[in-house]
Amino acid sequence: MSDKPIYMDNAATTRLDPEVFAAMEPFFNKHFGNAASKYYQEGRTAHQAMESARGQLAGLLGADDEKEITITSCATESNNWVINSLLLNGTKKHVITSAIEHHAILEPIEFLEKHHGIKATILPVDERGMVSPQLLKDSITDETALVSIMHANNEIGTVLPIRELADIAHEKGVLFHTDACQTVGKIPVKVNELGADFLSLSAHKFHGPKGTGALYIRKGTRLEPFIRGGGQERGRRAGTSNIPSIVGMGKAAELAGKRIESEAPRERELVEKLWQGLNAKMPKIRRNGDPEKRIPNLLNICVAGVEGEAVLGYLDMYGIMVSSGSACTSGSLDPSHVLLAIGLPAEVAHGSIRFSMSHETEASDVERIIEIMPDVVERLRQMSPTWNG
Amino acid sequence: MSDKPIYMDNAATTRLDPEVFAAMEPFFNKHFGNAASKYYQEGRTAHQAMESARGQLAGLLGADDEKEITITSCATESNNWVINSLLLNGTKKHVITSAIEHHAILEPIEFLEKHHGIKATILPVDERGMVSPQLLKDSITDETALVSIMHANNEIGTVLPIRELADIAHEKGVLFHTDACQTVGKIPVKVNELGADFLSLSAHKFHGPKGTGALYIRKGTRLEPFIRGGGQERGRRAGTSNIPSIVGMGKAAELAGKRIESEAPRERELVEKLWQGLNAKMPKIRRNGDPEKRIPNLLNICVAGVEGEAVLGYLDMYGIMVSSGSACTSGSLDPSHVLLAIGLPAEVAHGSIRFSMSHETEASDVERIIEIMPDVVERLRQMSPTWNG
Repeated sequence: MSDKPIYMDNAATTRLDPEVFAAMEPFFNKHFGNAASKYYQEGRTAHQAMESARGQLAGLLGADDEKEITITSCATESNNWVINSLLLNGTKKHVITSAIEHHAILEPIEFLEKHHGIKATILPVDERGMVSPQLLKDSITDETALVSIMHANNEIGTVLPIRELADIAHEKGVLFHTDACQTVGKIPVKVNELGADFLSLSAHKFHGPKGTGALYIRKGTRLEPFIRGGGQERGRRAGTSNIPSIVGMGKAAELAGKRIESEAPRERELVEKLWQGLNAKMPKIRRNGDPEKRIPNLLNICVAGVEGEAVLGYLDMYGIMVSSGSACTSGSLDPSHVLLAIGLPAEVAHGSIRFSMSHETEASDVERIIEIMPDVVERLRQMSPTWNG
Repeated sequence: MSDKPIYMDNAATTRLDPEVFAAMEPFFNKHFGNAASKYYQEGRTAHQAMESARGQLAGLLGADDEKEITITSCATESNNWVINSLLLNGTKKHVITSAIEHHAILEPIEFLEKHHGIKATILPVDERGMVSPQLLKDSITDETALVSIMHANNEIGTVLPIRELADIAHEKGVLFHTDACQTVGKIPVKVNELGADFLSLSAHKFHGPKGTGALYIRKGTRLEPFIRGGGQERGRRAGTSNIPSIVGMGKAAELAGKRIESEAPRERELVEKLWQGLNAKMPKIRRNGDPEKRIPNLLNICVAGVEGEAVLGYLDMYGIMVSSGSACTSGSLDPSHVLLAIGLPAEVAHGSIRFSMSHETEASDVERIIEIMPDVVERLRQMSPTWNG
C-alpha cells in the first residue's frame, strides 16, 4: 500500500500547476499593491498583471473583447450572480434549467421560487443526460428571463448541445447562460461557437488556484452587479482584486489552451482503457453518461451491490483518490440528483464511482486501478446484503 | 530618487507576511485536495487545515465558537451578504447606516432602495466622523431590520462606539452589523465586547492574502445564504473552499494577535511624529478624524491649495506610496464622500492625503516623508491658481 498516490478526482479540483504557482509567486511577495491604487507604480503593476491575465482567459475562450470577462471568486458566485441578477431585478420571472445542473444553479433557483415568486421549469434529461431541444423550445414563455444549461455535467461528463439550445433561446429573445466548469481547459470552449450570453468558469478546475473564477458576459448584455462597492471590474464586481490568483488563472488558461489538442485524445484513450479493464474484470457494472458526447477525462460507473462510499474508503487505503458523485455533496447520504435524473434507481445510484483524469494521469495509474478495484469490489459484494452475484 | 520604496498605503492593502506565505505554500503545491472530498486523506487534510485556520480567526476575535466564522471571498462580499439577505428576504424593510460607510455598504443599500422598496436612513456624522447614539436611537422604527455602522473609517481612521450603538439597536430588537476591515489586526477586536451580531473582515488588510474574508455571525442569529450551491461552510456559503488563502488568513490572524500589543503604541507614535513633522514644516494643513478615538496606524490630512492626486504623483517619483481617499475609489474625480460627510468643502477634500502604516513601517520612513513632502507641496502650491499663501 506504499505506492505513489493516484489522484483521479480532477473534476472536484486539480493540482495547481507549478508554472501557475511560479507566475503567482511574485504577486504574493513582491508586487502586492492594490490594483485600484493607480497613483503609484506597485498599484499599476498589479493592474497591468490583472489585465494581462484577463487577456489570457479571453484568449482561451475566443472572446471578442477582454472586457467580456469579469473576475469573480468562483463559478458558484458566477452562477448565483446570473440567476439572482436576472430574476430578482428584471421584469420577467421565469427561468428554465435542467435537472442535472450543479447545485450552484439549482439551489439559488429553488430559493427564488420559494421566497421571491420566481417560476422555474426544470427540464428532464434522457438516460445519457441529454436535454431535449424540442422540450426547451416548448417551455419558453413570454415570461422567460433566462435559460441556464450546463456545458458538461460534472458527475457523468455528458456534453450538452449548447449551441443548439442557445439558438432556441435566442430565437425567442431569451438570454442563455452555461456553466462551463467541467469543459474549460478540457475541450475547446469558444464563446462565439457556443453562442451563450453568459458563461461561468472556475480556475481550480483547470490547474489554476482555488478562490478565483470568472463570468463571461457577452458585449452589449446588461447584468446588474451581484457584489457592489468599489469600482473594480469596471463596476461589475466589487472587492479588492485578488491579483496573485487572477495572474494564476490567466497562466492556467494559457497552459490549458496549449495542452487541449494533445491531452483530450490521450485522456479519452485512458478513460476507455479504464472502462474496458474494469468491465472485463467486474460483472454487473454500468457506465453512465453519453458514450460519445462527453468530456474526455471522466468515467462514471455504477457498481451493483456496493455503496460507492465504501469503495472510496477502501481505495483511499491504497492511495487512490476518486469520488462518488460530486465533491460538493460528498458526505451527503442522498443519492446523486444527476444519477436519479438519468433514470437510475436510488440503490444503483448509491454504487456510483467517478474517475476524473488530468494531464498528470499516467497509463500506469489506470493499470493500477484495474488491478486493485475489482478485488475491493468483490470483497465488498461478499459482505453486501443486496448482492446476489 | 533611488532610495528604498516607502509603502504607506496599508489601509488599501498590506504586504503578505512571509510567514503567512510559508503557511500557504504547502496547500498550493502539495495538499491541493478539495476540502469537501472527505473520502480520501488529501481532502481531509485540506478540511483540517481550514478548520484550524477558522480557529485562529475565532481566537483573534474572541468568538465563543468557531462555527460563528463563515469564510467569504472578501469583506465586500460579507457586507453585501448581510445587507441583501436581511433586507431582501426579511419582512422588515428599513436599514440604518452612516454617511461614512465603505461603498460596499452604501452601494448595495442604494440599489435596494432604488429597485426593491427598501427604506434607508443614512446617519450624518460630526466633524470627527462620529455617529450620534441619540440620533441612532431616534431613527429606529418598527420596520428596522438592521443597523450597520463601521468599526473604524477607512479614510480618516475614526473608531466608532460600536458597543454603545449595538446596545441601542438591541434594546429595540434590531440586528447590528459592523464592517471591521480597518480594525481587525490593528486594535483588539473582540466580538463579545463589541456586541455586534455580524462583523465583516478581510484578510489582506492584516497581511493575509487577497481574495479571502469572513463574516462573523453570532450564534443563534439567522442569516440566509447569499451564495448558494454546495454545502460548504455548513451550508452558509457555497463554493469550493479556497484552502491556501484560508490557511493564510488563519496564520495572519495569529500573527496579528501577537503583534497588536506592541505595534499599536509604536504606530500611534509614528503617526504623531509624522503629523508633528509635517505640521511644523507646512502651513495650512489640517488633520482629519478623531484625535483620540482612532486606529493607531492612520493619518489623514488636507493640504490647502493642492490636489491630493498631484501630490501622490510627485511622491510616487520618490518611491513613496500613499493615497488620497480610499483605493476603491482611486481614480474617481469626485471628492471623498467621507470628507464631505465630516463637513469639509469639496475643494478642501480634494487636497486629502492618507498615510497608513504597518509593522513594517520604520521611523526613517516617516522622517523621509517629512523631508520630502513639504517641498513637493510647496512646488505644487506655487503652480496652484487657488493658493494664495
